Amino acid sequence: MQLGMIGLGRMGGNIVRRLLQNGHTAVVFDQNPDAVAALVQEGATGADSLEDFVAKLDQPRAAWVMLPAGEITEGTVQRLAGLMQADDVIIDGGNSFYKDDVRRAADLRHKGIHYVDVGTSGGVWGLERGYCMMIGGDTSAVDRLDPVFATLAPGLGSVPRTPGREGRDPRAEQGYIHAGPSGAGHFVKMVHNGIEYGLMQAYAEGFDILKHAGAKELPEAQRFDLDIGDIAEVWRRGSVVSSWLLDLTAQALAGDEQLEDFSGFVADSGEGRWTLNAAIEESVPANVLSAALYARFRSREHASYADKLLSAMRKGFGGHLEPK
Amino acid sequence: MQLGMIGLGRMGGNIVRRLLQNGHTAVVFDQNPDAVAALVQEGATGADSLEDFVAKLDQPRAAWVMLPAGEITEGTVQRLAGLMQADDVIIDGGNSFYKDDVRRAADLRHKGIHYVDVGTSGGVWGLERGYCMMIGGDTSAVDRLDPVFATLAPGLGSVPRTPGREGRDPRAEQGYIHAGPSGAGHFVKMVHNGIEYGLMQAYAEGFDILKHAGAKELPEAQRFDLDIGDIAEVWRRGSVVSSWLLDLTAQALAGDEQLEDFSGFVADSGEGRWTLNAAIEESVPANVLSAALYARFRSREHASYADKLLSAMRKGFGGHLEPK
Amino acid sequence: MQLGMIGLGRMGGNIVRRLLQNGHTAVVFDQNPDAVAALVQEGATGADSLEDFVAKLDQPRAAWVMLPAGEITEGTVQRLAGLMQADDVIIDGGNSFYKDDVRRAADLRHKGIHYVDVGTSGGVWGLERGYCMMIGGDTSAVDRLDPVFATLAPGLGSVPRTPGREGRDPRAEQGYIHAGPSGAGHFVKMVHNGIEYGLMQAYAEGFDILKHAGAKELPEAQRFDLDIGDIAEVWRRGSVVSSWLLDLTAQALAGDEQLEDFSGFVADSGEGRWTLNAAIEESVPANVLSAALYARFRSREHASYADKLLSAMRKGFGGHLEPK
Amino acid sequence: MQLGMIGLGRMGGNIVRRLLQNGHTAVVFDQNPDAVAALVQEGATGADSLEDFVAKLDQPRAAWVMLPAGEITEGTVQRLAGLMQADDVIIDGGNSFYKDDVRRAADLRHKGIHYVDVGTSGGVWGLERGYCMMIGGDTSAVDRLDPVFATLAPGLGSVPRTPGREGRDPRAEQGYIHAGPSGAGHFVKMVHNGIEYGLMQAYAEGFDILKHAGAKELPEAQRFDLDIGDIAEVWRRGSVVSSWLLDLTAQALAGDEQLEDFSGFVADSGEGRWTLNAAIEESVPANVLSAALYARFRSREHASYADKLLSAMRKGFGGHLEPK
Repeated sequence: MQLGMIGLGRMGGNIVRRLLQNGHTAVVFDQNPDAVAALVQEGATGADSLEDFVAKLDQPRAAWVMLPAGEITEGTVQRLAGLMQADDVIIDGGNSFYKDDVRRAADLRHKGIHYVDVGTSGGVWGLERGYCMMIGGDTSAVDRLDPVFATLAPGLGSVPRTPGREGRDPRAEQGYIHAGPSGAGHFVKMVHNGIEYGLMQAYAEGFDILKHAGAKELPEAQRFDLDIGDIAEVWRRGSVVSSWLLDLTAQALAGDEQLEDFSGFVADSGEGRWTLNAAIEESVPANVLSAALYARFRSREHASYADKLLSAMRKGFGGHLEPK
Repeated sequence: MQLGMIGLGRMGGNIVRRLLQNGHTAVVFDQNPDAVAALVQEGATGADSLEDFVAKLDQPRAAWVMLPAGEITEGTVQRLAGLMQADDVIIDGGNSFYKDDVRRAADLRHKGIHYVDVGTSGGVWGLERGYCMMIGGDTSAVDRLDPVFATLAPGLGSVPRTPGREGRDPRAEQGYIHAGPSGAGHFVKMVHNGIEYGLMQAYAEGFDILKHAGAKELPEAQRFDLDIGDIAEVWRRGSVVSSWLLDLTAQALAGDEQLEDFSGFVADSGEGRWTLNAAIEESVPANVLSAALYARFRSREHASYADKLLSAMRKGFGGHLEPK
Repeated sequence: MQLGMIGLGRMGGNIVRRLLQNGHTAVVFDQNPDAVAALVQEGATGADSLEDFVAKLDQPRAAWVMLPAGEITEGTVQRLAGLMQADDVIIDGGNSFYKDDVRRAADLRHKGIHYVDVGTSGGVWGLERGYCMMIGGDTSAVDRLDPVFATLAPGLGSVPRTPGREGRDPRAEQGYIHAGPSGAGHFVKMVHNGIEYGLMQAYAEGFDILKHAGAKELPEAQRFDLDIGDIAEVWRRGSVVSSWLLDLTAQALAGDEQLEDFSGFVADSGEGRWTLNAAIEESVPANVLSAALYARFRSREHASYADKLLSAMRKGFGGHLEPK
Repeated sequence: MQLGMIGLGRMGGNIVRRLLQNGHTAVVFDQNPDAVAALVQEGATGADSLEDFVAKLDQPRAAWVMLPAGEITEGTVQRLAGLMQADDVIIDGGNSFYKDDVRRAADLRHKGIHYVDVGTSGGVWGLERGYCMMIGGDTSAVDRLDPVFATLAPGLGSVPRTPGREGRDPRAEQGYIHAGPSGAGHFVKMVHNGIEYGLMQAYAEGFDILKHAGAKELPEAQRFDLDIGDIAEVWRRGSVVSSWLLDLTAQALAGDEQLEDFSGFVADSGEGRWTLNAAIEESVPANVLSAALYARFRSREHASYADKLLSAMRKGFGGHLEPK
């Protein structure tokens, strides 16, 4: 089927590529004409404005917005809505906040336009591995787009089927689900990223403990000088902690076990924060997911005010001075 | 080669089976004669006492101790050491504390007996998938046992090779490593389990947030009634959080999404605790691994004293009474 | 000076009492006529409707709203605003969300009405000890209300003066501050409560460790059967952990060291949650404040879904069954 | 009564001073003859060797060891034990590990020597405020030393009595307790310090959130530029979070609100670590106390290995590069 794509960065561009490679057609638009030209080379129809883009789409239209930041997405969805008609579908495939989806869907419903939010996992590997998608929106719109989702999803691949799933929604094991009404897709993707932070931090702490197993402060007979890269590798086979993140870790450590290329300044995107906000709203304890996010906050500070205050108190009650 | 096995429970028995199925021979002993008889049926040589067991092993002997609890392991290793001779090897494949390994290895070294500690991951799946092994001990003893380790390990299997590992120790990608001197094997296995707790808790918190997404306390437009089982399934393909633990989660949820068979009383073994003790000894922050262990402690309490104290304070300063 | 008070619960009623006892006058209103009658007995002027209340106040009016829940406060402030005039002041002394203050103040500013938010700590002890107040709003309005604040505040009392504060705002050591523009008062009070949760949880965990020092799982020579009440008492004098919360703890434990009157179901008010939301918004790590809130969430659950999921995973990889 | 003191640093010296000022006598010894000479000036009897020290004590002797580090304390107690006789008492007033107390007491019991462990809080303020003491040991020895403890303790002071304590051990409200057998004193002091870490971190996080309330990343209308020093001061009177640690915080902030004298490198002593080890041994959840200790660990690192590993994983799955 035909899909329109706005935003031809790494994610948007590769999604179009995967569609074109599998018999679909695409109308594409981006602020940057070079990005448009590159995909036209690969078989897409280019547009040079939002108006042109909308005009080139067959009705009922399906326009996928794949933009990095919340503000730009908001503006683009609004402008697009002004140009589209009843029964058209706007898809937000970025990392929008699910409450924004709920609001936008309600607004667009008045005009008869469908709004579908798609949480998309897969990163730079999606073109090759396929995209895991969590979808929110009206059933009619989600069903209409099924050919697109089925192509973008990884499919069964070499992952063994889960026993006991016979008779359940077959889309899940293809790598995409219709999670619920508008917002549900990004909600599930948000929690996915929250979990991702927690998993990453569990590995990070564990490898940190392994790395310090040879510390001089330990009794000599209990010190170990461990090969961190080999440990990451060995756990990939037959162990309880094997995972795709561990595969990536083993890969990074194979190249540079000291990780000297990295300063340890760890960014975070909104989803980890929103996951905690959701946990707090739902009264669900989330110590691990919180600690994972806070570790990233802390990684970006030198000499936090909190730590200085601790030093000040220690000086106050014990006369303790910081080591110079 | 020939291996002696003491302790024929689920782990010990299956290790012997995997060896027998691959051309090795085994002398076996267990307190329970039925367990011995079962393996004799499958081709092992049975022993009816520790003395008999030692007598039936070819020199230099290799005796693997696979017992559940620390105390029994300690006693068995001591008795075995009394019966064995210089150049024999005692292997502890259980979940011993690494500082006990360091001590035992030093004791046995005086008698010329080698002590090898093997951290073994794989659980009930090991017979089929193979065992991921982390090994500590003298290089000569570890090398001598290599045929056993090579057979027990999962091997390359269908897991893709890690780019950039060319020229590094090939055992790691077969699923076993010689981590270092005595104690190093159990140390690495201990941290493995610490990480395992962290990963599990990250998933548990995330799914808990998904489960409560439909809570009545939330604004109606922002409530989602999610299919937890389908979410676990969809993340298995193409997502960043795919892992073996997620595979198992999807399997459990396919059968019973409400998990009504479980009371939520979560046991813990020593490794999670020891991992924290090691982190504390090394001055490594481990918020996630700690929170994961504490969640298990908390799961086993009703009405903790800590919580009662909070209620008492709240009554003290605000006159707040607990809801009846 | 004259103050109007809407909401004559424990907090509102006692604030009026403290004002009347110190030479101020008050016009009072409450949904419950008995509450009004009681304070009329003590010298206040009663009102039987919001209109009557506004009519009885001298211009420029000062009306303090002291209502328990956010929604009722919002409605009351709106209705009050409809009845009041330029230069009047509306004070919200409850536990409103600071972003609501910011919005309300901006709305009322169009009508020339001042909005002052007062975070008030002191609970049931305020009538006697005085109220610690954190105030947000225009300087002119805050200054006009100074006689009220000065009376409600605890004053210097027996608390020693802080060396080095000479020349700084003298209100702080009287027990009230003008923290900043509208919203700043409730923001500071919110963080105050966040800290309160953290302090309480620190004590709760510590006493829990003391309580379990005699546990049978410990080696006999290292078990202690401690007198928790005496420990709380002894720390009140000369120790680093002395505090008002500890005073209250000692009091609770003097009566019932087992705390058998409490079920351990610990409520939380919005401030602890908002504090975390603020920390997340500011990228400030807040592990302790988060853990304190989550402990309360957890205290209200039996058999959490998260814990059941851990059990399900453990069964999946290790065949572990929960103890019956 | 007469007390011997070994170790005349800030703590030991001031303890002797407080005793001398209140009618007791003291025999004193220190590696540093100047420290001995100073106290001789103030009325103590000086000793120039451990032998001389023991010889100058009246029988049955009471010798208080007040040394900074565990190893030196251990050696001194051993040497002292060799010089002393049945019915003498050795007091360890430092911060020893309680399991060492249990062991030492058992050893000395064979010789008839009593071992009393005293956890002492009060820091540099003890001379003036008195020392809060938590005591472990045989009742006979503890009772014999009561005149010393009664003098060192703060006494009732200006702290109001706790209602409901009538008829309970009166020592607690004087500021000292006999907590239990040997080890119990240091155990209680250890948990005291664990709580202290938790309280400090709760304040530190809260003030950090206040400090960042003006951050540019926040919406302009919701930014506050707060006076941190005034906030600390105002909470000292009438608020729920008032405490001695807050008094010290207010004092530090009165002098330098930016805390520019501090680098934020926060040391920790053994007690915080041992408290967690005890919690783990007892299966008591201690998220707050753990997070407090880990924050100190983290304060001492630049670019932790854990953080670098997170960056490496992020690069692996998303192509994310760290900001330069």
